[in-house]
Parts: sequence; structure tokens; C-alpha cells
Amino acid sequence: MTGTPARTPVTVIGLGPMGQALAGAFLKAGHPTTVWNRSAGKATGLVEQGAVLAPTAAEAVAASPLVVACVIDYDAVHAILGPAADALRGRTLVNLTADTPAKARETAAWAAGHGIGYLDGAIMTPAYSIGGPSAVVLYSGPEALYADHRPALAALGGSGVHLGTDPGRAAAHDVALLDIFWTAMSGVAHAFALAKAEDIAAKDLAPFARGIGDLLAGTMSDYAEQVDAGAYPGHVSSIASAAAGMDHVIEAAEHHGIDAALLRAARATARRAVEEGHGADGYSRLTEVLGRPGAPA
Amino acid sequence: MTGTPARTPVTVIGLGPMGQALAGAFLKAGHPTTVWNRSAGKATGLVEQGAVLAPTAAEAVAASPLVVACVIDYDAVHAILGPAADALRGRTLVNLTADTPAKARETAAWAAGHGIGYLDGAIMTPAYSIGGPSAVVLYSGPEALYADHRPALAALGGSGVHLGTDPGRAAAHDVALLDIFWTAMSGVAHAFALAKAEDIAAKDLAPFARGIGDLLAGTMSDYAEQVDAGAYPGHVSSIASAAAGMDHVIEAAEHHGIDAALLRAARATARRAVEEGHGADGYSRLTEVLGRPGAPA
Ligand SMILES: NC(=O)c1ccc[n+]([C@@H]2O[C@H](COP(=O)([O-])OP(=O)(O)OC[C@H]3O[C@@H](n4cnc5c(N)ncnc54)[C@H](OP(=O)(O)O)[C@@H]3O)[C@@H](O)[C@H]2O)c1
Ligand SMILES: NC(=O)c1ccc[n+]([C@@H]2O[C@H](COP(=O)([O-])OP(=O)(O)OC[C@H]3O[C@@H](n4cnc5c(N)ncnc54)[C@H](OP(=O)(O)O)[C@@H]3O)[C@@H](O)[C@H]2O)c1
Repeated sequence: MTGTPARTPVTVIGLGPMGQALAGAFLKAGHPTTVWNRSAGKATGLVEQGAVLAPTAAEAVAASPLVVACVIDYDAVHAILGPAADALRGRTLVNLTADTPAKARETAAWAAGHGIGYLDGAIMTPAYSIGGPSAVVLYSGPEALYADHRPALAALGGSGVHLGTDPGRAAAHDVALLDIFWTAMSGVAHAFALAKAEDIAAKDLAPFARGIGDLLAGTMSDYAEQVDAGAYPGHVSSIASAAAGMDHVIEAAEHHGIDAALLRAARATARRAVEEGHGADGYSRLTEVLGRPGAPA
Repeated sequence: MTGTPARTPVTVIGLGPMGQALAGAFLKAGHPTTVWNRSAGKATGLVEQGAVLAPTAAEAVAASPLVVACVIDYDAVHAILGPAADALRGRTLVNLTADTPAKARETAAWAAGHGIGYLDGAIMTPAYSIGGPSAVVLYSGPEALYADHRPALAALGGSGVHLGTDPGRAAAHDVALLDIFWTAMSGVAHAFALAKAEDIAAKDLAPFARGIGDLLAGTMSDYAEQVDAGAYPGHVSSIASAAAGMDHVIEAAEHHGIDAALLRAARATARRAVEEGHGADGYSRLTEVLGRPGAPA
């Protein structure tokens, strides 16, 4: 008689929006799931779906060979798991909290020092994507450890990508991609404020704003090619033209009393490139300008 | 005997990357096309394709009932067309230069004062899109004038959208959408610099960066709904979590000596929202925070 193969028990530490989504996905895939969160009350929905709420982080960790942590930053990870290091010994910790590459490497060293298997990870898609086809999760750390836990991590859906053994590799991608995401989202926040001041309903701007997202997506591979080649052709559009475009946006925002510090910072870099004689180059030149250590933006 | 219907002659003023693309599209669609540019030499390729290079802006304008201007800003438009205002009388000027809504309205008033039909416009897609299916051009101004010239403007490809009679309407959409585009592109420039410092080749980051563009595109309609409703739910992700994410990016950039003024400006707004007690709200709250006139970012 063959039944459903037993699924690895999994513990999820941290029940913010993302931790809840992770635990929900493990439950849905049939993994016995133990959860823990610093403050009480966030486990209610998951317990109704079959999760076990552990009374302490150490007990949560002890319940499963695979422990997934997802909290606000690595300081919180250490605050929670530092006292539970003994309970973690011999288990695998997959840390899906976002933080810097340096912190990821430090945490890997800490885990090694306590006999804890360690994979670092970064989630590139929103909480609601988890368990579905569009989820993107990046991992780094020992190849064999990733291979061992890949079947369980598949419960998170979409594509899991192993980026190599350097534990900081996933976080390095994460900071670069969050750099785009949060800068862009801040531009979005500002743009909708400006549109409102111009009596444009957000729903009327939205289809065009979506088009800007699509446009950004479509330019990334050309942009990257120029950066890797160190060649910044301006035949499609120049930095000088972009700086003029930013002037108009800043003028329009300030006309409505809307602070434009964000785009002013962006323009400062463009102007610097123009002053250096790169005004006729394409925007990818700015990666070179910003990348010179010590260069003011 | 019926032949090909005669196409309206069109004049294109300005031969930067975009003006060249516009003139090329009119030529391809069979319009007799006259061109002019401040500095010489940029018309060579177009003349080879059949365009006529006029010796002065006034002569260029006199050659066609429909004049399309596309230069760096409206000051340049006025510098070029101010002296040609008499030649423009009774013709239609479609100004596809980007600038502020206020300048668009002023230019419409100037045109009305000289008996010039005036449509303002804004091009939302890159030069290489012109004439193809993905081109997006926004127009505003008199409905009947747009209807008259729509067949000729169809040569620019993709979708032309008439946004109403207020001549500032296209520019109002333009500044909001450029706000997203140039802020985001500045984040992209910074992100590739950070990735490089972390030894990530641009081509390896590019597919994930494309995913961020897709993600942005996908969030616009929910974001807009929240802004229009004045409700900013944080159940997917909170401003406090975003601010922590920005901390990591800034820390990672500065670790490599890469200036992070842009993301610092973004974070200042997020922190302000947290200080005001909105840390648990979603990011769309920031549109409300930024939209309060006089609010520092
Ligand atoms: N939400 C998303 O869509 C999304 C997408 C991609 C990546 N991520 C990443 O996933 C991680 C978790 O994000 P999130 O959205 O779930 O929410 P979050 O606000 O970043 O983190 C909330 C979690 O962190 C815990 N926490 C905060 N401060 C703590 C401290 N000092 N000590 C112990 N625990 C602490 C919270 O516990 P309490 O409940 O007790 O406060 C809660 O479990 C973050 O690194 C985030 O960048 C999230
Ligand atoms: N390129 C794109 O992909 C793109 C996409 C969307 C919108 N747009 C918009 O289209 C417009 C044109 O852009 P572009 O890319 O073609 O290049 P641009 O650099 O913005 O403008 C170049 C044109 O402006 C002229 N010009 C500049 N300063 C002038 C002055 N003081 N007096 C007279 N003419 C002057 C240039 O003449 P010279 O040749 O003599 O310098 C050239 O014809 C801009 O408003 C831009 O925002 C461009």
C-alpha cells in the first residue's frame, strides 16, 4: 500500500503578512506546520487551518527539522533565535528575512558556529503571491542543503532560484532589487499625489502607470547590456533630455506645494553627469557615475 | 479611377531622437514630410527617405497644414515658433514636446491669440516605439481639431488617446507618469551600481529587475483604488516594513561608498508616515502624506 508520502514538518518563525503567507502555503501543501510569533494573536487563522502554535521560539524550533524565519530584519532574527540556538543544532534554518549581504554572511557564520544548517533567502514577490505561480524566492548557501530542502520549499510556489554558495548572494540581489522597487514605489506615491493635485483620479492614471511599469520591465535587458559593456549610447534618449523632463515634473509638483525632494535627488545625479560632459549619453551612464565610490549623487 | 488617397502634408519641427522617429513614421505612412531642426545635419537620414529639409522654421511651417513640434521644452518651442507665428496662422500645431500643464495652457492661449489651431500632446513611450503597436501618445485640446487630424496622427502608431479639451490635460498626465518613470529609472541606475559593487553582473540582475517592473505594473490598479478610496490597508505589506527594507539597501550601498541620497529621500517620507502613526498602513498612504500641500517629503 502506498499513501501520500509524509511531508517534512516545518516551523515558521514570524507571522507578519509574509510569515502568515509562508505558513499558509506549507499547510496547504500538507506539511505539519508549527508557528511562533513575538506578539500573540497572529496565529489564530493558521491554527484554524491546522497549524500548531508553539508557546516559545525554542519549542517551535524543536518541532521541525526545517525552520523558516521571516521577520522584519536580522536583529529580530537574532533576538528570537539567539536564545534558541541549542534547539536549532542539527536542524536547518532558512532565513527569508530581508537584510544586507553582510548580515547574511554574519548570520551564516553564527549558524555554522552552532551546528545549524543555514540557507539564506530573499522573497522578491508580495505576500499574496506565495504558494502561487508568480512567487519568486532567491536562495544562497550550501548546494546540498538546498537540494535536501527543495521539495519542502517548493510549497512556496513559483520559482525558487539557488544563486550559489556565498550566503550573502541572495541578499545582494535583494538589496539591488529592493533599491529599484522602493525607489519606484516612492515615485508612484509622489506621482499619484501630483495627479490628484491636477484633478486626475487615480483610477484614470492607473492604466498609464501600468504602462510605465511595463516599459521599465522592457528596458532592463538593454540597460544591463550597456552597463556590462560600459557603453552608454544616447540615440534613443539622452540624459540632458531626461534632466529637462525632471525639471518639468519638479516645477509642476512645487506649483502645487508638493515637495519634490525625491526627484530633486534623482536630478542631481543626472545634472552631475551633464556637468561631467555626459549629457548626450543614455541613462545607463548614471550607473557608472553612481558606482564611483565616494561620488556624491 | 481611385488611387491612394492623398496624405496630409506634415511638418516636423525638432529632430532629436523623438522628432526623427516622428518624421520617419509620417514618411513611412506616405505623408509628404517637411522637417526643420535648429542645428544642421540631423535631417540627412530623413531626406534620404524623402523628407524635405526647409531652410527656416517659417518656411517649414508654411509647407504643411499640420505642424508637429517636438523639442526639449516649451521655451525652445517658443524660441523656434514665436518668429514663425504668422506663418502658422490658420494651420494646426500639435505640440508633442514635454513640459508642465501650466506651460501647455499658456501655449494654447498664445496659439489662440495668433489664430493657430492647437493640440497639446505627450508621448509616453520611447522613440523606437513610434510607428509601431506599442506607441502611446496622449492629446488634449479641441475635440473637433483632434478628429480632423486623427487620420494623420495615426501614422505614429499604437494608441492615441484624447484626454479632453483642457490643453493642460495631456501634460498633467505626462508629468505624473514621468515622475514614476524618471524616479524609477534613477532607482534602476543606482541598483545596477549596487549590484556591480556586489559582483553581480548586470545581465544576471536583469531578469529579476524585469520582474520588479512587472510587479510595479501589476500593483498600479490596487494602488489607485486605495488612493481614490482614501483607505490604505497594510495587510500585504506595511510602511514600517518598507522603511526597514530601505534601511538595508542604504546600509548596503553606503558600505560600498555608493551615495544613497535618492533612497534616503524616499525613506524620509516613509519615516514621516511612521512618525505620524501610519506605520501599519500600506504604501498608498504616502500619496496622502505627500499630497498635503506644504508637507516636507
Ligand atoms: N509582505 C510582503 O509582501 C513581503 C514581500 C517580500 C519580502 N518581504 C520580507 O519579509 C519579511 C517579513 O515581512 P512582513 O511583511 O511579514 O512584515 P514585517 O513588518 O517586515 O515583519 C513583521 C514580523 O517581524 C516581527 N518583528 C518585528 N520586530 C521584531 C522584534 N524586535 N523582535 C522580534 N520580532 C519582531 C513581527 O512580530 P510582531 O508581530 O510581534 O510585531 C512580525 O513577526 C521582511 O524582511 C520583508 O522585507 C515581505
Ligand atoms: N526620446 C524619447 O524616447 C522620448 C520619449 C518620450 C518623450 N520624449 C519627449 O520628446 C521631446 C523631444 O525629445 P528628444 O528625445 O527628441 O530629445 P531632446 O534632447 O529632448 O530634444 C532635442 C531637440 O530639441 C532641440 N532643442 C534643444 N534646445 C533647443 C533650443 N534652445 N532652441 C531650439 N531647439 C532646441 C534640439 O535641437 P538641436 O538638435 O539643435 O540641439 C532637438 O531638435 C522631449 O520633450 C522629450 O521629453 C522623448
